[in-house]
Amino acid sequence: MFRSEINAGLLKSSVDTVSVLVDECKVRLDEDGLSIKAVDPANVGMVELDIPADSFESYEADDELLGLNLVRFQDITGMANKGDSIVMELDEETRKLLIRIDGLRYTLSLIDPDSIHQEPNVPDLDLPGNVILPGREIRRGVKAAGMVSDHMAFGVSDDEGSFYMSAEGDTDDVRVDLRDDDVIELETGGETAQSLFSLDYLDSMAKAIPNDAQVEVEVGDDYPVKMRFEVSGGEAQVTYLLAPRIENE
Amino acid sequence: MFRSEINAGLLKSSVDTVSVLVDECKVRLDEDGLSIKAVDPANVGMVELDIPADSFESYEADDELLGLNLVRFQDITGMANKGDSIVMELDEETRKLLIRIDGLRYTLSLIDPDSIHQEPNVPDLDLPGNVILPGREIRRGVKAAGMVSDHMAFGVSDDEGSFYMSAEGDTDDVRVDLRDDDVIELETGGETAQSLFSLDYLDSMAKAIPNDAQVEVEVGDDYPVKMRFEVSGGEAQVTYLLAPRIENE
Amino acid sequence: MFRSEINAGLLKSSVDTVSVLVDECKVRLDEDGLSIKAVDPANVGMVELDIPADSFESYEADDELLGLNLVRFQDITGMANKGDSIVMELDEETRKLLIRIDGLRYTLSLIDPDSIHQEPNVPDLDLPGNVILPGREIRRGVKAAGMVSDHMAFGVSDDEGSFYMSAEGDTDDVRVDLRDDDVIELETGGETAQSLFSLDYLDSMAKAIPNDAQVEVEVGDDYPVKMRFEVSGGEAQVTYLLAPRIENE
Repeated sequence: MFRSEINAGLLKSSVDTVSVLVDECKVRLDEDGLSIKAVDPANVGMVELDIPADSFESYEADDELLGLNLVRFQDITGMANKGDSIVMELDEETRKLLIRIDGLRYTLSLIDPDSIHQEPNVPDLDLPGNVILPGREIRRGVKAAGMVSDHMAFGVSDDEGSFYMSAEGDTDDVRVDLRDDDVIELETGGETAQSLFSLDYLDSMAKAIPNDAQVEVEVGDDYPVKMRFEVSGGEAQVTYLLAPRIENE
Repeated sequence: MFRSEINAGLLKSSVDTVSVLVDECKVRLDEDGLSIKAVDPANVGMVELDIPADSFESYEADDELLGLNLVRFQDITGMANKGDSIVMELDEETRKLLIRIDGLRYTLSLIDPDSIHQEPNVPDLDLPGNVILPGREIRRGVKAAGMVSDHMAFGVSDDEGSFYMSAEGDTDDVRVDLRDDDVIELETGGETAQSLFSLDYLDSMAKAIPNDAQVEVEVGDDYPVKMRFEVSGGEAQVTYLLAPRIENE
Repeated sequence: MFRSEINAGLLKSSVDTVSVLVDECKVRLDEDGLSIKAVDPANVGMVELDIPADSFESYEADDELLGLNLVRFQDITGMANKGDSIVMELDEETRKLLIRIDGLRYTLSLIDPDSIHQEPNVPDLDLPGNVILPGREIRRGVKAAGMVSDHMAFGVSDDEGSFYMSAEGDTDDVRVDLRDDDVIELETGGETAQSLFSLDYLDSMAKAIPNDAQVEVEVGDDYPVKMRFEVSGGEAQVTYLLAPRIENE
């Protein structure tokens, strides 16, 4: 059983954070709300999305596991204007999702959840570098890095007291340094640590992070990076985890 | 003899309604105004456009029949800003159309009208379903239908007292129901009637219908649909007629 | 030795005027400022750009000749917002250009100036037709001409007291006439003179001329056209010179 009503902008921004990594996913519903865990086919990028029941305009659900085609789902939610409400209801008999947007009724076939890539276990990491910065700064660093390379480093420098994003190309280099004044919070953990990531993934993730979101970034030495942020002013929580490229490969 | 001056926005919006169906057309001029009738090469979609003499800033014409390359004509009118006036004058000697837009003079060769597809006779139909709704609702229904199929139905349901647009895909369905409250006027004629149309044509037509135009839609059972609306607040009248796809084909 | 700070908008608009003709160029630096002279590979279009030292927010330079990859350089300056300052500094040791934009540091490899096409000598011409008009009028004439041909004429008519831009196509013609009232200044030199130019080049040049710049156009009879204008309200000076197509070819 599932019946809910939710603000279109919130739903769209939330689902965008998942769809940059996968085309289909499992959606878990229970009385606490809606949650999605997904990992891309290459097992490099993970996402965890939670929309608590309270963030819906109305919400009722028994435990359900749905298989969702995200490409199709985004087309449908794209019919809504920002202020619209989107009603979603599970038809128990047909196991189809009925989606209503201001006079429009869309009957969406679901995917067999068993046919979808397994949900990942997002590991608990204790990483030395911690920084909180606006989404737009990450986007800027990623864009700059893209001018010279197809991968980039995230790092903390204890000496300089900075969080940095950098990329080295064949002839040119680029680097963004953010110090205490430039960010919302910065902790280097007394270490200098750096990890290298694929720009493909970072670029996709950066596009799904709202410009004005406060993003908690945790970074280590040749470790995955964790990015945590909220969507629509706290209505939904998202965690990205991205595996590093090992520099000596 | 033909010499006229007309608001650029009005001329552009009017000609757009024809150019979505054909690349060239016959233009009839007489003392009442300018009119175009055209049918697409597959004989599926027809358009009738009338710009009365009064809607021009100035207008003088004897009976004339011109052959117009619409693609070229749209390029030219595209040089004008919305508030500009466009002066059109027929050079009797060269049989070319002189178009002037704020210092710019364009000499346009006309096409031999005999080489252009014959003008259609728009049939008089007496269809049971009649609804008046804003252009934007049609555009929305057409866009939604495009997510699941390449054709869609327009219909009236006497039971539900509604006008609807719907499409059935292989796995998903979509339907927009508009009842008395949602539309400007609705008459089902005491019948339930539905016809199926090609989305290609409906999409083109919907794009040329102004968002805020009141569109009179007449619909029957496996009959053509007729859509009548005005451009620029009544300055020009347009009628579309679209042949149905027969469902049992 | 070179170290400077400059408004991002000024630098971008200035460099755009050069990059429409060439992908790489020599940049001359001395105590008077920064200057570029370049000619396209086909020797048809020339550009001269001067940004005086005073137009920089800060400027220090000994005589230097740098080889600049303009495509790459535009990517970098594209990271800056209009109001940003861009700091450029030459690293004497590595002979690389260090570019800083609000926390972003880009290390740009330079090109060996000897490998770049020689700088042109812009000839002194004494042409009969002189007109000063806004950049947007040139852009409009060029756009109109593009509808009918791939080359267009610039000319002055002493009889009509006008500067004109015109193009003749296979079937259609287009012409923009500008008289005393339409332009800022007009001198025909008592002659009727016309030269024909490639629209490819004119289109590129017109796009780099600011809409509101006052452009001094000098035109002769089968002679190059010279267009002089300022960028960012006088902070930089640009001269274009474009060789004519000979009509009888």
